[in-house]
Amino acid sequence: MHVYQFFIAPETIHDGKFNLAGDEFRHCCRVLRKTAGGEIDIFDGQGRRWTARIESIGKESAECRITQEYPLQPRLKPAILLGVGILKSNLLDEIVVSATALGVAFIVPLSTIHSVKNRVNLQRLKKLSLAAMKQSGLAYTPQITNCQSLDAWIEMVSDVDLKMIAEQHDSVGLGQIKDLTAAGQVAVMIGPEGGFDETELRQAREAGFITINIFPYRLRTELAVVTALAGIRTLTANNYRVNHGN
Amino acid sequence: MHVYQFFIAPETIHDGKFNLAGDEFRHCCRVLRKTAGGEIDIFDGQGRRWTARIESIGKESAECRITQEYPLQPRLKPAILLGVGILKSNLLDEIVVSATALGVAFIVPLSTIHSVKNRVNLQRLKKLSLAAMKQSGLAYTPQITNCQSLDAWIEMVSDVDLKMIAEQHDSVGLGQIKDLTAAGQVAVMIGPEGGFDETELRQAREAGFITINIFPYRLRTELAVVTALAGIRTLTANNYRVNHGN
Repeated sequence: MHVYQFFIAPETIHDGKFNLAGDEFRHCCRVLRKTAGGEIDIFDGQGRRWTARIESIGKESAECRITQEYPLQPRLKPAILLGVGILKSNLLDEIVVSATALGVAFIVPLSTIHSVKNRVNLQRLKKLSLAAMKQSGLAYTPQITNCQSLDAWIEMVSDVDLKMIAEQHDSVGLGQIKDLTAAGQVAVMIGPEGGFDETELRQAREAGFITINIFPYRLRTELAVVTALAGIRTLTANNYRVNHGN
Repeated sequence: MHVYQFFIAPETIHDGKFNLAGDEFRHCCRVLRKTAGGEIDIFDGQGRRWTARIESIGKESAECRITQEYPLQPRLKPAILLGVGILKSNLLDEIVVSATALGVAFIVPLSTIHSVKNRVNLQRLKKLSLAAMKQSGLAYTPQITNCQSLDAWIEMVSDVDLKMIAEQHDSVGLGQIKDLTAAGQVAVMIGPEGGFDETELRQAREAGFITINIFPYRLRTELAVVTALAGIRTLTANNYRVNHGN
């Protein structure tokens, strides 16, 4: 698998041709100094990947033509919708990077009672996520939303079959959730540093969330996120067996 | 569970009395401004925990007396021995903090062919680990060793029943390892950024290591460590069901 990949919005590809522009253009032609005739690997964030040839380089963009198409990358199953209480920026950055690499489908920063902030820099998070995707070799872009209220998050995942809250003091382990391996979508909700408020836990439980214990001792939120995601991926690993060719 | 805990080397407790000194003394009496008569929670890094009363405060230490003893904290099973290729310092720091919070027993920085360095600041790593332990509520100190060669690491884990190397291209998942849930000790070996060299993989395999796939896409080393540890903890969660009282 090639190391340098570029993201191309699928709607910008016409008849096998596209314009590489913006950050991707600058990285390709200024940083990596690719020249006309050079080849690049591209992906569209929806599982499709191609090799393309740079046909000509302008001041702000490069015209490229697709030369090879690869099989659609299989989606990881279950699709994971992650709702996470907002933390200090650098910790949220870390969570976005890790969650992207573990292939989550949605990242929803939650404004909760114990959140330290109720704003996120969405532009920045998307940039970090894209960089993490390129490193990982995954070809699906996670959707990152702006900061949501608990009400909005609960509404957003209302159709998801399996909805879980990580709660240290619960005694039910992730491995005891029978529906997990069959689930097509799971929602996971993890609190900010101060945890969820009792009223929030009650509201989530009434909306069908179950509380689970991912580890018997306290974990910082960013480590709890990775532990929960890694636990889900480990228990459902038989759902996906990926071919590592291009 | 109290938030502020202090580490006391078990050999320094005599007849229920001990001297709080060094960093722990400074944190207790200078930072937290605890005074004589105040109570503190202490642990010995080997599963024992007490509450103690500060009897008198000197210039460089405080005399304390144990007032209550708590039940021995159960050890997490399996005990995990983590061997990790040395990375840039801040990434190794992150690994030590995360691995400590996930309750590993040994952290062994490995000097491998693709390591960027072959030295670690052991003092610093131990300090970070102790801080992470206090946050987690765990009462067992992981042993952190100085940088080891692959030969030394293989020798160190020669008696461990289950020995694994995380390898992206392998097709055997962690969940397919039948011996995992019964294992008392497992060794996990994770490469530096550049991975292990073929000769190193061969040497480890000959010493009984099996390669496993923890996730089908590329993970940065620090995320691979947490993913492997969280995967092991998730699959073996039935081995420990911890009582959360003090």
